Amino acid sequence: MTPIITAFEWVPEFARSYVRDMRARWAFEETGQPYTVDVIDFETVKGPAHRRLQPFGQIPTYRDGTVDIFESGAIALHIARQAPGLLPADPAGQARAEQWVIAALNSVEPCVMQLAVVDIFEADRPWSAARRPTVVEDIRARLADLSTALGDKPWLDGDFSVGDLIMVSVLRGLHDSGLLDEFPNLAAYVARGEARPAYQRALAAHLADFRAEPIAA
Amino acid sequence: MTPIITAFEWVPEFARSYVRDMRARWAFEETGQPYTVDVIDFETVKGPAHRRLQPFGQIPTYRDGTVDIFESGAIALHIARQAPGLLPADPAGQARAEQWVIAALNSVEPCVMQLAVVDIFEADRPWSAARRPTVVEDIRARLADLSTALGDKPWLDGDFSVGDLIMVSVLRGLHDSGLLDEFPNLAAYVARGEARPAYQRALAAHLADFRAEPIAA
Repeated sequence: MTPIITAFEWVPEFARSYVRDMRARWAFEETGQPYTVDVIDFETVKGPAHRRLQPFGQIPTYRDGTVDIFESGAIALHIARQAPGLLPADPAGQARAEQWVIAALNSVEPCVMQLAVVDIFEADRPWSAARRPTVVEDIRARLADLSTALGDKPWLDGDFSVGDLIMVSVLRGLHDSGLLDEFPNLAAYVARGEARPAYQRALAAHLADFRAEPIAA
Repeated sequence: MTPIITAFEWVPEFARSYVRDMRARWAFEETGQPYTVDVIDFETVKGPAHRRLQPFGQIPTYRDGTVDIFESGAIALHIARQAPGLLPADPAGQARAEQWVIAALNSVEPCVMQLAVVDIFEADRPWSAARRPTVVEDIRARLADLSTALGDKPWLDGDFSVGDLIMVSVLRGLHDSGLLDEFPNLAAYVARGEARPAYQRALAAHLADFRAEPIAA
């Protein structure tokens, strides 16, 4: 069967393009695989039926009749293994691409997410303003290391891979912060990712699937 | 060649058993693969030569003459693919084990790490005491979901897998918090992981490799 993923029927404007079904959609587009989308509302995603597929009450989930998984990083890796386009042919290169997926998810995204915590999720808490400079310094340190690792290469390791797909997806979260601009090679790297036709197709489909208004609860 | 990983020659008492070479060592032990350890000091790990292997200046790294990677999650997955013991035989089961690795690293560990941030790394900052209850509530919400997903099963999905190895490693970080005790099935899950002979062998080797005192800088 054609793989099916879940996505939200509506999210606020500021969250659009960042919701994680984008990572799965982009992987499908890079590898030329068809997919369908089951669009669900916030109430459904937090309900017991969806939690049996995604224990944390989030999207996306993925199922294709054989494989039934959650976690966008795992979904992108699974999609990457089904068709050429996101993984090199040699096992050593595949291990490095996987390394960059995990570096993005475990060494970079946890720092980046803390900026969303102080600026959005805990913006009204009394500690957020005082804490913000420390969060920014942590991100800056990670970006400096990543900038050195990227150097003047177009992608992290040879051709564009699922590692770049996830890393670009993570770094995009810094667009509003101005922090990427301090590292021109990283800003250019993210722009190269976003300019890919597969990214643009994924984004158009992601945006087209939102309703104008959320379904009333 | 026998795979070689890097580990620290010394860390403070409170960090022992939590340093991430443990995750690689445990994976080697579960799959019965020999390995050697290159023990390095803090100065070396932050230096340019090591950063060419590990851009963020951390341990462990892994190399075997063919594959040369960093990120303990990627290293554990790579080790798991070299010999039986940490992955089911069927591709769908392998995808689910990988999903749990990534869930541990991207959906659970970022919450858990914030407790170390408020209690250790930012313990002296003026905002940490005020922020701590929010961090604890975030962790509690994740643990509640994970507890439901585990239910009364011994492991997350069938036999013990690399997904359990990483999830147990992440949850161990909550030992001092008392939070695991609120979810008896998770506390028992972590205890089952730590009781495995392979975990015990990895821990003994990890502890034996520390010097009594750090090398003077």
